[in-house]
Amino acid sequence: MGPEEFRQAAHRLVDWVADYRASVASLPVRSQVAPGEVAGALPPCPPEEPGSLEAFIDDLDQVIVPGLTHTQHPRNFAWFPSNASLASVLGDLVAAGIGALGISWQSAPALTELEQVVCDWARQLCGLSPAWHGTIYDGASTACLVALLVARERALAGSAGSQREAGLQAAASPLVVYTSPEAHSSVPKAALLAGFGASNLRFVPVRRPSRAMDARALGELMAEDAASSRRPAAVVATAGTTSTTAFDPISEICEVASRYGAFVHVDAAMAGSAMLLPECRDLFFGIEQADSISWNPHKWLGSVLETSLFYLKDPAALVSVMATNPSYLRSFSEEPVVEYRDWGLPLGRRFRALRLWALLRLEGAEALRARMRRDLANAERLAKLVASEPGWEVLAPVRLQTVCVRHSPAGLAGEELDRHTLAWCEAVNSSGRAHVTPAQLDGRWMVRVSVGAETTEWADVEALWEIMRQAAKL
Amino acid sequence: MGPEEFRQAAHRLVDWVADYRASVASLPVRSQVAPGEVAGALPPCPPEEPGSLEAFIDDLDQVIVPGLTHTQHPRNFAWFPSNASLASVLGDLVAAGIGALGISWQSAPALTELEQVVCDWARQLCGLSPAWHGTIYDGASTACLVALLVARERALAGSAGSQREAGLQAAASPLVVYTSPEAHSSVPKAALLAGFGASNLRFVPVRRPSRAMDARALGELMAEDAASSRRPAAVVATAGTTSTTAFDPISEICEVASRYGAFVHVDAAMAGSAMLLPECRDLFFGIEQADSISWNPHKWLGSVLETSLFYLKDPAALVSVMATNPSYLRSFSEEPVVEYRDWGLPLGRRFRALRLWALLRLEGAEALRARMRRDLANAERLAKLVASEPGWEVLAPVRLQTVCVRHSPAGLAGEELDRHTLAWCEAVNSSGRAHVTPAQLDGRWMVRVSVGAETTEWADVEALWEIMRQAAKL
Repeated sequence: MGPEEFRQAAHRLVDWVADYRASVASLPVRSQVAPGEVAGALPPCPPEEPGSLEAFIDDLDQVIVPGLTHTQHPRNFAWFPSNASLASVLGDLVAAGIGALGISWQSAPALTELEQVVCDWARQLCGLSPAWHGTIYDGASTACLVALLVARERALAGSAGSQREAGLQAAASPLVVYTSPEAHSSVPKAALLAGFGASNLRFVPVRRPSRAMDARALGELMAEDAASSRRPAAVVATAGTTSTTAFDPISEICEVASRYGAFVHVDAAMAGSAMLLPECRDLFFGIEQADSISWNPHKWLGSVLETSLFYLKDPAALVSVMATNPSYLRSFSEEPVVEYRDWGLPLGRRFRALRLWALLRLEGAEALRARMRRDLANAERLAKLVASEPGWEVLAPVRLQTVCVRHSPAGLAGEELDRHTLAWCEAVNSSGRAHVTPAQLDGRWMVRVSVGAETTEWADVEALWEIMRQAAKL
Repeated sequence: MGPEEFRQAAHRLVDWVADYRASVASLPVRSQVAPGEVAGALPPCPPEEPGSLEAFIDDLDQVIVPGLTHTQHPRNFAWFPSNASLASVLGDLVAAGIGALGISWQSAPALTELEQVVCDWARQLCGLSPAWHGTIYDGASTACLVALLVARERALAGSAGSQREAGLQAAASPLVVYTSPEAHSSVPKAALLAGFGASNLRFVPVRRPSRAMDARALGELMAEDAASSRRPAAVVATAGTTSTTAFDPISEICEVASRYGAFVHVDAAMAGSAMLLPECRDLFFGIEQADSISWNPHKWLGSVLETSLFYLKDPAALVSVMATNPSYLRSFSEEPVVEYRDWGLPLGRRFRALRLWALLRLEGAEALRARMRRDLANAERLAKLVASEPGWEVLAPVRLQTVCVRHSPAGLAGEELDRHTLAWCEAVNSSGRAHVTPAQLDGRWMVRVSVGAETTEWADVEALWEIMRQAAKL
């Protein structure tokens, strides 16, 4: 396809996207298709001949859109917000159009340097000190894995267990990783993939009702492990857990970890955006003492996926774990340059920084803050309505924009209550009028209302509340 | 930004992209900026207020484009092709515009099912049997890491070293990984990150002049390791090495590996596209015997980055290593569904399949094959010219579209020859008229001419050859 054919087709698709966004509120939020329906509607064999743009758009309309749960819908309260702000879509379009290849500084200097600039802009907006150096990953799962690999190598440095020697399989004493049972599933996954093993992963108890990690219990566990010739290697603290947006006490955790030289990674995947709001920064108290932080501008803030920021204080430690320098990848520059391939798992990257740059440039920080403040206020207002309604309860402190709710009719408990919860949640979702997702809290189902889609206004939250109450009555 | 403002801005940027592609041949291929120049041209602090589209486009023109090495330039012969075909850009635009969130089947059924369909289309185009199941990763580095993690857990299954138990740090006998010294730098990187340790990574010698792994030497190394109570766990074979596009003998390697139950991963990152050409499939002889394969449609084939296919025969083994099932991520479906979060490292993904789907739908397979055949013919034609020119040599068999060359004036050898090679290579690149990248072969520099940018015609290759000869005369 040449540039002129692209021009025509892309204009058509820009209109298609604009129309989609303009009308998304009229679609059922959660896709109503059954498993296999989308795949079954597509040809089982690949096309030999070129297809028309018309047929492509027909497939988008007839097959793809009905198969979507509409993340950008104003009544999408499921999981966490994943806003693909249209300003960011513009940056992503330019990135794909340019088609730059990020495998070394030389392969696309602007790709590397814009990433440096944008990561530093985001750092400043978060109120983080200049001690932090950032890069963009695909997601927070990757960030956690990388953090634990760096922690692992820090603990093994100079020993036979170093990856430069015989590797973890030759570690002298078991390394231990700590997190809370409220941590995201990507944390145990990362610990296992990094080779620590499930039996060397400690789930530190949380306090109630905050559901924040109990730093004193962490200290006790670490002391026990150290006394048994195990080595506390890393703690993953969460700023804004997935179930209830609980905040672990970062300062206290760092103080405990420092006694054992353990690495502290802060997973702020969702809540990191709240660092843009000075009034929310107390929640992150102590973050400057941590070793690494991840947060995803592709969630609440509005950057197109996959834009996950990873900050750390000691990039040299990261580079020492990740660096490769084959002859075919050298940047022939007389001055030192940053080679982002040595800052993470993948070699090549697309022009990731453009989507965050476009968002910040075209929207400006103040508009992003205003939108997030709107969401905080809407969540608080909803929580008040729920708490004041007989039979309904708010199950966890509302720290940000997520409200955890349950409807408990008199006499219902245990599995019966679970069935009721899942039933009314499913009734909301199958209606297509709004989308919320359930989660378990202490083994019992609840429903999370995660306010924060870019287009969600109070009227949408109010509508959801009405839909929920109707559903719970059935 | 609302849909109408987006519509206007996106139309402007579509024209910008089309104009960029239409005029890219007139730009210097390699960016002429010095380190820090791009970053220095951008404001050090983030914008508080919204910026205009005009100013954004000005920055693209004045700062970003001069800071780019133009991957889509017809005289770009550097590294390997990384074609962002405009048909694929259309798919990517739709993906960003829709803003779907892929964290479970339920979160975007079409995202999951289109990925299944497109991976299967690509499988069929490659002539691979239905035994293979595919997914899309960001790149082949990730694929290699995943393959080695699966191999590690296969070797440790049921033992204390399993990640579900005490992890690799409790492995009873050292696990060993094998690859060739010609393997991509991501292979040793993956082996180290997976915890095997550098001293448990064997570089199996290659044969000459093919530079393909010597399967007999592999067998000897494995036998030695097994006799010393080490456990051969995995082999990474390369189909199309980075330096010279050498092909390891997959069938022989699989035969040797099977004696020890070792996992075989085939890294066909670049060359995988050639599987679309039946006349090239002999190069992959034995691939059906391997355990996993990765290849990147984002290289020669033309999909926008980051589109890397990972195929494996036993998805259950992969899922057992990667699976998480937290309450907040369940798909409430009565029928079984594929959860791609359990097929790799990240949890969330954007609508990756759309860019490959758009490429295949809008171009059709036959056009892609024709383009690659053009490139193969151009590379062969160039190799003949080089080989017949006094003072010039082709250093490795031309298996695909990459020609490894050196100019050796009488009397020059050793470091003097290296200096000459790097000097004329730099002269080509600093001229801006073409871009080639050097690499070391047996410790001495050569220049790789990697034909295959989507817009590269014979006239461009011919022009490069003239530019190279001029540069070497200086």
